[in-house]
Amino acid sequence: MIISMKKHASKKDIEHVMQKFKDAGLQIHESIGENYNVFGIVGDTSCIDIDQIEANPYVEHVQRIAAPYKLANRMFHPQDTIVDVNGIHIGGKKPIVVIGGPCSVESEEMIERIAYKVKEAGACMLRGGAYKPRTSPYAFQGMGTQGILAMEKAGKKTGLPIVSELMSADKLDEFIEHVDVIQIGARNMQNFDLLKAVGKTKKPILLKRGLANTIEEWIMAAEYILSEGNPNVIFCERGIRTFEPYTRNTLDLSVIPIIKEKTHLPIIIDPSHATGDWKLVESASLAAIAAGADGLIIEVHDDPENAMSDGVQSLLPEKFDALVEKGRKIAHVLGRDLL
Amino acid sequence: MIISMKKHASKKDIEHVMQKFKDAGLQIHESIGENYNVFGIVGDTSCIDIDQIEANPYVEHVQRIAAPYKLANRMFHPQDTIVDVNGIHIGGKKPIVVIGGPCSVESEEMIERIAYKVKEAGACMLRGGAYKPRTSPYAFQGMGTQGILAMEKAGKKTGLPIVSELMSADKLDEFIEHVDVIQIGARNMQNFDLLKAVGKTKKPILLKRGLANTIEEWIMAAEYILSEGNPNVIFCERGIRTFEPYTRNTLDLSVIPIIKEKTHLPIIIDPSHATGDWKLVESASLAAIAAGADGLIIEVHDDPENAMSDGVQSLLPEKFDALVEKGRKIAHVLGRDLL
Amino acid sequence: MIISMKKHASKKDIEHVMQKFKDAGLQIHESIGENYNVFGIVGDTSCIDIDQIEANPYVEHVQRIAAPYKLANRMFHPQDTIVDVNGIHIGGKKPIVVIGGPCSVESEEMIERIAYKVKEAGACMLRGGAYKPRTSPYAFQGMGTQGILAMEKAGKKTGLPIVSELMSADKLDEFIEHVDVIQIGARNMQNFDLLKAVGKTKKPILLKRGLANTIEEWIMAAEYILSEGNPNVIFCERGIRTFEPYTRNTLDLSVIPIIKEKTHLPIIIDPSHATGDWKLVESASLAAIAAGADGLIIEVHDDPENAMSDGVQSLLPEKFDALVEKGRKIAHVLGRDLL
Amino acid sequence: MIISMKKHASKKDIEHVMQKFKDAGLQIHESIGENYNVFGIVGDTSCIDIDQIEANPYVEHVQRIAAPYKLANRMFHPQDTIVDVNGIHIGGKKPIVVIGGPCSVESEEMIERIAYKVKEAGACMLRGGAYKPRTSPYAFQGMGTQGILAMEKAGKKTGLPIVSELMSADKLDEFIEHVDVIQIGARNMQNFDLLKAVGKTKKPILLKRGLANTIEEWIMAAEYILSEGNPNVIFCERGIRTFEPYTRNTLDLSVIPIIKEKTHLPIIIDPSHATGDWKLVESASLAAIAAGADGLIIEVHDDPENAMSDGVQSLLPEKFDALVEKGRKIAHVLGRDLL
Repeated sequence: MIISMKKHASKKDIEHVMQKFKDAGLQIHESIGENYNVFGIVGDTSCIDIDQIEANPYVEHVQRIAAPYKLANRMFHPQDTIVDVNGIHIGGKKPIVVIGGPCSVESEEMIERIAYKVKEAGACMLRGGAYKPRTSPYAFQGMGTQGILAMEKAGKKTGLPIVSELMSADKLDEFIEHVDVIQIGARNMQNFDLLKAVGKTKKPILLKRGLANTIEEWIMAAEYILSEGNPNVIFCERGIRTFEPYTRNTLDLSVIPIIKEKTHLPIIIDPSHATGDWKLVESASLAAIAAGADGLIIEVHDDPENAMSDGVQSLLPEKFDALVEKGRKIAHVLGRDLL
Repeated sequence: MIISMKKHASKKDIEHVMQKFKDAGLQIHESIGENYNVFGIVGDTSCIDIDQIEANPYVEHVQRIAAPYKLANRMFHPQDTIVDVNGIHIGGKKPIVVIGGPCSVESEEMIERIAYKVKEAGACMLRGGAYKPRTSPYAFQGMGTQGILAMEKAGKKTGLPIVSELMSADKLDEFIEHVDVIQIGARNMQNFDLLKAVGKTKKPILLKRGLANTIEEWIMAAEYILSEGNPNVIFCERGIRTFEPYTRNTLDLSVIPIIKEKTHLPIIIDPSHATGDWKLVESASLAAIAAGADGLIIEVHDDPENAMSDGVQSLLPEKFDALVEKGRKIAHVLGRDLL
Repeated sequence: MIISMKKHASKKDIEHVMQKFKDAGLQIHESIGENYNVFGIVGDTSCIDIDQIEANPYVEHVQRIAAPYKLANRMFHPQDTIVDVNGIHIGGKKPIVVIGGPCSVESEEMIERIAYKVKEAGACMLRGGAYKPRTSPYAFQGMGTQGILAMEKAGKKTGLPIVSELMSADKLDEFIEHVDVIQIGARNMQNFDLLKAVGKTKKPILLKRGLANTIEEWIMAAEYILSEGNPNVIFCERGIRTFEPYTRNTLDLSVIPIIKEKTHLPIIIDPSHATGDWKLVESASLAAIAAGADGLIIEVHDDPENAMSDGVQSLLPEKFDALVEKGRKIAHVLGRDLL
Repeated sequence: MIISMKKHASKKDIEHVMQKFKDAGLQIHESIGENYNVFGIVGDTSCIDIDQIEANPYVEHVQRIAAPYKLANRMFHPQDTIVDVNGIHIGGKKPIVVIGGPCSVESEEMIERIAYKVKEAGACMLRGGAYKPRTSPYAFQGMGTQGILAMEKAGKKTGLPIVSELMSADKLDEFIEHVDVIQIGARNMQNFDLLKAVGKTKKPILLKRGLANTIEEWIMAAEYILSEGNPNVIFCERGIRTFEPYTRNTLDLSVIPIIKEKTHLPIIIDPSHATGDWKLVESASLAAIAAGADGLIIEVHDDPENAMSDGVQSLLPEKFDALVEKGRKIAHVLGRDLL
């Protein structure tokens, strides 16, 4: 951490600031120039609160050099983390996983029918929402517990592990019992109580990036989960909010090499929410694989125009099938396979 | 609602789409041109899911004309809602309220001391956080229940109603018992389970705008609370996330006349989080009053550089005092007072 | 175009608005409901100014259905435009082109040396800046005419067509004489006088997307060029500005399928400016090819740390070479080649 | 400037980087820690190109401490710059100026008529566009030279100095002869050749902030003008592009105190383009004055629905009049007047 003190800071003002670092057992390196007094603070500064230091009126600027996260940091954990979902391995150089399924579970029959279709098309996990975060209180809010149980049944019949979104910690026991991968949605990426709750389990957690959260904030959200003892975090990019109205969000694929450089955790891509338009999903999916993603999570529905949510971004099973085939070939170019 | 069907849509395709509207008891007005077939759907369309219609491959475009919210809509509730907080009235042409206090409650002594200072300087309510949403799991997370009880005590001694952030529904009973205004933070603006929970109470709810949420999404979040039966919603703008790195957020004051046109609910401004820098708080506060805000919520601390959070954006009590004085004069120009 | 008139608009008010459309020879379809009066305007509305209509106090909302561009519109020009650069064809199902070279031409010797290196590595065109748009007036502004002549020489020796940025119409003759593809930079995307000027030539124009311009604005910029008589426009996405500080810009690859659906023009990707970091360039390049791009334009330098500009995002020739090899294999998966 | 070198950088690698600073006559202060080697570079670093340093593979991070601008920097020019427009003084504690007029000059008669109306309502300068940057090539592009001459005439008759936008350097002589304040539009904020051209004159330059430009980039654009010898720069904020669709742009009033702290130049606000809706203009204008602006530039039209551009955001003269009255009272609260 580097602190620049204002030119007119007195020796006493400076000492006052530095005392806090000394108290924290950190080393201080001084570099006094004509216009600025600069101090390098050496040691584990991840617990230092930058805001607090900047509140001092004699401090010009504080710059963190070391990342504010430790457990997610590749520097201290060089090997890739491989998350195991009922024997399916995500991360590292492992085969790329494709997760398919509807936005919402609409009935027991429907989720089973689509589960078979996505499995046939090459998916190795089943997605589906039973608790739905909807902008409008008047929109379909999901089937709740019945949806979770229907997914579990469809998962067991097809042999596909299931992924579903948890919106509130009071349903955590239900998810621990019936769901294989717990999804934290974009809107809850900084719902810190929910992050702490899932951090206390050992379940694989699919952590979506928030609508307008930086990569660093996203890694810090993972750090919340890791610091409670759960190492099984899978990042999921789903597009960020920008000024562009044509797409629902703007898919930021640069996060793939960045997350892999900064952290040791796997990262997958959700092209359905990123684009909001099924016609753009194949292009985005192939790009994600080429960019180095560890997996894809794609909305598939066999009757999109009657889907209870997100029909416009859902692929028909046959289109999903074609996408998986092309994706596999791109994976091969990168020396990976597609599960 | 206006639906444009694609040029090559057959009569049957069109009928298929229109049947849904007929089933919902809506009227349909047809306008068939050379290149497009346009249909106006008349009636209460707030429950119609646009996404679902757009999923139909023959639909070119859907445009909502009526707003998707009803209870918050000024069209159906022309008079201003006045929220009553222990006899302090917020909204309408009522005097502008100023809420002051520290970011975090740090001790019983500290919150009491600052409560007296902000009261003296002209605040009519006390803010303070006991449960803190922090980016880092290693940062101070707040005093919890002890903080709430300390605030309650300081509030009773000074006669100031208290405002504090609720992060999780499992603390709702504590807030109902001890807190006067429940704040929903920016990161939880679309935590729909939390919105539903506070909607079941009658407490005044301070609903902050999310980091990157549109005005319409924000009103829909209020609609969640209203639709559960709680009419006491106060909007609070605290800046949105943009590309500009100099300020913590970009304060969007245009929301004041927009919220007042579209809804009947009061709106206040948080210049502290919006700017992230105490030196910018006075300018933003006076601008907010001039723009028509019903109130301000400002971070005040008497020892910012030792504050446990947000010191850099906290005003000293004497600066807060000067701000209140100027703000009062601007309120007078607009024909309002400052409580 | 669809116009919603306010509920309380009188018959006379409505007629007043509609008269303008009648005068323009457009057909009007009426749909009068309980709360809204909706009118469909049919015919060529691309010259109608939406702002002007919305200025009428009785107009609630105007929605354009037809795109505001004609010449760029695939609807009226279904076949792909192939831009011919000295025999190299860009667009359609043609082989993907790779353009390489330094950010700035630094000397005659340097540009020739790098030209040979990028050619060897598989580039089929040479990029290089002689007029440089720099944020700071104190930064290197480019070699100017000497740089253009040096590029031309290097291009002739290696047989590579050259691409360079034109910043001001007063240098247009120089570019027409010496440069093969004229680049319009992101900062000049809406420099309409410059667009009109290059529209009067027949030179291929590489039109970069502006920092914060929507896809529609970008196509309208192309429309400026096309409407002056020059059909040879190549779109180039180079990342947009978002809140994320880690990358220089956020690369928006969704534009590839969108531009190809909406227009008939080719589109290439600039992963160097998009990411601002050479370590991210390969991932972004492969993703661009997988997403369907018609080409790449990549910064290459053999001594990045002494480059006079953009060293940090320049690839070493050997890394560029490896990238081209992988890119070719991905192109094959999509049934294309890499030139 | 502070440079962090990577942990594994050898002594020779470090010396290689530092040699450049020594060659530039800068002093180097070393601070070597366990994980990082930090160097403070002291002296005038405004000409150092950060990108070039970061291109070195052993450099971890470069942080500029001193601002990259000199002539605009208040540190080296503590007193306020007052720009003189035919005897009207802008900046410092001088009275706030209000500039009014139509978006476009539509005829000699029209600009004269509106000039009298805005003068009567309290404007001290006249705005009007003769060269219009329009998104569409099919939209009205302005009257050109005839418009400039008509404005000049209206200005002379009413005694109001005139402000108009210059889009291309080839019209500079015309503007020098006939226009009082040359406006550089948002889309041309980084048209560096245009900035250099107006920098060679002594005319007051109204420099609008670009759609998505940071405050630092904006100051650097001013620095281009200043460094060519023209000290008469007036900043003009007109809203930035964000994700919010309701307003045309998002007005960022925090720039007022920031520009005043960082630079010595005046700053005015354009609430018309910022909001894009006349109903929001008064609120934004009063907020701007309360925030400390040195002036306002407002679109006024007496027949908005027949305006050839921007009618929807133009105020009627009577509304403009009312706004000026309220603005004056708010100026008084801040101890200023309104010219």
